[in-house]
Amino acid sequence: MAKPPQSRRECEALDMDDPLQHARKAFVLPEKTIYLDGHSLGPATHEAIKRVNHAAAQEWAQGLIRSWNDAGGGEGWIDLPLRVGQRIAGLIGAQPDEVIVADSVSVNLFKLAAAAMDLAGTKTLLVEESEFPTDQYVAEGPAGIKSGRLKRVGADQAISVLAKECVVLIKSVVNYRTALVADIAAHEKAAAKTGSVIVWDLSHAAGVLELDLAEQGAWLAAGCTYKFLNGGPGAPAYLYVRGDLAEKLSNPIAGWMGHASPFAFDPGYAPRAGVARFAAGTPGILSLSALDGALDAFNGTDIRLVERKARALGDLVLARTKAMGLEAISPTDPSRRGGHVSVRHPDGYAVVQALIARGVIADFRAPDCMRFGVSPLFLRYADVWDAMDALANVLTSAEWDKPEFKTRAAVT
Amino acid sequence: MAKPPQSRRECEALDMDDPLQHARKAFVLPEKTIYLDGHSLGPATHEAIKRVNHAAAQEWAQGLIRSWNDAGGGEGWIDLPLRVGQRIAGLIGAQPDEVIVADSVSVNLFKLAAAAMDLAGTKTLLVEESEFPTDQYVAEGPAGIKSGRLKRVGADQAISVLAKECVVLIKSVVNYRTALVADIAAHEKAAAKTGSVIVWDLSHAAGVLELDLAEQGAWLAAGCTYKFLNGGPGAPAYLYVRGDLAEKLSNPIAGWMGHASPFAFDPGYAPRAGVARFAAGTPGILSLSALDGALDAFNGTDIRLVERKARALGDLVLARTKAMGLEAISPTDPSRRGGHVSVRHPDGYAVVQALIARGVIADFRAPDCMRFGVSPLFLRYADVWDAMDALANVLTSAEWDKPEFKTRAAVT
Repeated sequence: MAKPPQSRRECEALDMDDPLQHARKAFVLPEKTIYLDGHSLGPATHEAIKRVNHAAAQEWAQGLIRSWNDAGGGEGWIDLPLRVGQRIAGLIGAQPDEVIVADSVSVNLFKLAAAAMDLAGTKTLLVEESEFPTDQYVAEGPAGIKSGRLKRVGADQAISVLAKECVVLIKSVVNYRTALVADIAAHEKAAAKTGSVIVWDLSHAAGVLELDLAEQGAWLAAGCTYKFLNGGPGAPAYLYVRGDLAEKLSNPIAGWMGHASPFAFDPGYAPRAGVARFAAGTPGILSLSALDGALDAFNGTDIRLVERKARALGDLVLARTKAMGLEAISPTDPSRRGGHVSVRHPDGYAVVQALIARGVIADFRAPDCMRFGVSPLFLRYADVWDAMDALANVLTSAEWDKPEFKTRAAVT
Repeated sequence: MAKPPQSRRECEALDMDDPLQHARKAFVLPEKTIYLDGHSLGPATHEAIKRVNHAAAQEWAQGLIRSWNDAGGGEGWIDLPLRVGQRIAGLIGAQPDEVIVADSVSVNLFKLAAAAMDLAGTKTLLVEESEFPTDQYVAEGPAGIKSGRLKRVGADQAISVLAKECVVLIKSVVNYRTALVADIAAHEKAAAKTGSVIVWDLSHAAGVLELDLAEQGAWLAAGCTYKFLNGGPGAPAYLYVRGDLAEKLSNPIAGWMGHASPFAFDPGYAPRAGVARFAAGTPGILSLSALDGALDAFNGTDIRLVERKARALGDLVLARTKAMGLEAISPTDPSRRGGHVSVRHPDGYAVVQALIARGVIADFRAPDCMRFGVSPLFLRYADVWDAMDALANVLTSAEWDKPEFKTRAAVT
């Protein structure tokens, strides 16, 4: 890995040579803002806005009910969840028919975890204490409803349990706090010893890392689309089920969109082939259309270049914050790090608010974790350099130490 | 109830006197189209399109992550599910804090049915064979996952079971096929005898009938927003939980949006107060914004006038179709009928396709049910008259009897 740039001039030179430099044009970015929060909510693209507006003003308003069959040049809304799933499959190393867009991550983790418990023949769900809290909460559901138990272990301890005991593990590929990347293949190998099943959460990983679920042997996964996939606020999530497993799995939420013939109106449930059995209710077409448009930003980009740039930008953040005396939470080894970088500050919340007031948007996770997202499609090296200048200024001037920066908002 | 109009002139006179005549202006309606399918997908309103576009191009693109706290004049996206829920509460006779928008109907029925089984202390779920198929499918989920059983009874037989046996019943207030209206109060009274709990599906009822869930003693309900509420294709659904019951219920899908402090990132789940505990994942803001805009069409309208006009328009459809020799599936008593009217025709699918080719959009449900939605906010008496003229022409000319009208589309 190359050494991080040492000056703004070096950053500008890297930007000039950046093979992803044209990707930025797809995005709508507010003036005087450097957005280091794409790991939380990716920014809008021109195409996402255009697409959602078209879906509302044309497909819905003019096409009305007919658009279920013929919106988008005859393809129809009805298959949009699979068509968009196919596009996401290409970004995570899955087969085109192994992914469907549906529901939220929480709902999808619930469905997959409940189905996985039956597949593995276990009543035990496993999460790590370092796991994204909502994944921990969601795990309580299938454990409770199926009269099972939820077991919690320390950070990075799940792999040793997998090798000893048959469980269903819910685990993020990239940790929301540290950005540490899990070794999918090693976990799957351990799981294979006991018949354990892992449900991967790709939320902080997809769209910024080169994932190869097939190669790494992943069975089941879900993920959100509003972070590095830039699908929009609360954009629908997706599910991945390895092709040969789908027929062995039951969706506990047996809605009509997961039915083999939803418009036959048969009284009994018969699951659709493949991953589509994990659909449930009617898909939210407007949000899904925005996501469809957003994915255009990945057209013609090589995800390996995206990953490489994320690592380089992350290295730059770590080098600059180290120089400011801030302790890194994220791994310094870029191959073990996702698309954001976290560093520690006891008044991190206020520091981040002061940065936002300067037009540099980052975020904060309790108790002391400042997160800087390094989305490679729209961030330039020079942007990250300038953002780090702003951080240095905020810290040396102590301008964060004001009451208005310490009042917590509802959403952090 | 007044006699249906006997001529187009009488229809025009009714339109002139219609207290809801101004509501039509809110809608975007394609030229040369009469839309009798608002019971399946309500049409777009100008405000819904404006609102979703604003949410994308301004709140998302310009506000970015900050909009979770401050979109929409400082209120923020984070409370939008409750704010929109409050608006729906006003249309269904619930308290403002008893409704939240979340997920799809399928997912919400699943959550409520699973929670209701614990509340009632029963392992038996009950559905009627005449129930909307997806509600029947969904019922298989909680029954299976909780090692319970699903019991099916004939149409309108649930009430007698409720009085004899403790069960959880999932039942539509308006039947999707017949439009028959269920007597909520009578069912709740029967349920009270055995400690049974009913989960009402309001999908075909809300926005067209005067519902008074409080007065009628309903405990739990869910409903979609894309039919008579005109929220858009696959718009998010809602949940109603009677205020005093929420604390006794557990959401099996324990996501962060149902957590008391989602941004404290506590490892353990602690439910939010009230109905909000039935939220799960991140809400789809773009679709939700369209719905928020769509509900403006109800501003200043009296839902009793909406119900009254739906009955009158339905009577008109029944009188005209009777004159054509078509057998009614829907009740002729308007007080027992929802916002659509179904009549029987052995080649109903082809007849409906021929009507659509003439610009009159209705729909069809297997095996022989032609449905005509009579949405009072945008339909005029004269529109319904003209649609029935078209139907009469299609039938007398047998123009439906062509191969192109008999090929079934994916979505009917």
